[in-house]
Amino acid sequence: MPTPERTAGSGRRLAHPDREDIQLEAVLHALADPIRLRIVCELTDGHTEMACIAFNLPVSKSTSTHHFRVLREAGVIRQHYEGTARMSRLREDDLEVLFPGLLSAVLEAYRRSHRPA
Amino acid sequence: MPTPERTAGSGRRLAHPDREDIQLEAVLHALADPIRLRIVCELTDGHTEMACIAFNLPVSKSTSTHHFRVLREAGVIRQHYEGTARMSRLREDDLEVLFPGLLSAVLEAYRRSHRPA
Repeated sequence: MPTPERTAGSGRRLAHPDREDIQLEAVLHALADPIRLRIVCELTDGHTEMACIAFNLPVSKSTSTHHFRVLREAGVIRQHYEGTARMSRLREDDLEVLFPGLLSAVLEAYRRSHRPA
Repeated sequence: MPTPERTAGSGRRLAHPDREDIQLEAVLHALADPIRLRIVCELTDGHTEMACIAFNLPVSKSTSTHHFRVLREAGVIRQHYEGTARMSRLREDDLEVLFPGLLSAVLEAYRRSHRPA
């Protein structure tokens, strides 16, 4: 069952799958997109938590919101509100328990394929 | 550039991406499906090459053909004809060079999540 989250200040709920409901296929689908891979990569680059607005993605706000939602609903990231800012962080621990080595292999592959020539 | 293949006996071409044209996002997309994960897993289970018909997948022939094509066009499998049989094998070497550890992490995750209770 997904666990809806309620932040005291906002009352806005953001649904997240429980660890045991995270599906490999959904995680792979969530990662199979250049914008979402970039988000995941930035979340590992020294940031434990980032506001959506801080990513400076080359897409519209609604497209960006869609990508974050795909990542959240697949169980790749966890989001919560701080005031009006939606903060995101990777669910590295959950993913590592479920799929050992997967996230690091994907991130390593992403960095290799986006390495400056 | 994809390299079309022509088998002496059949003349039927099957397009494959060259190693350097294999994209991480396409590979992840190809793997983000339970039928395609099953195909990939079976290709590693002691079989180096299998005929499509040997997989006994719970889908129609045209759906099955679609899944094999997605895997082939993403660079996950290589296919060729032997008579009328379309044979498939994993491009493990290419994938390991491009994305070290990715395929084994995905397969390990797949086997864990499909382990009998």
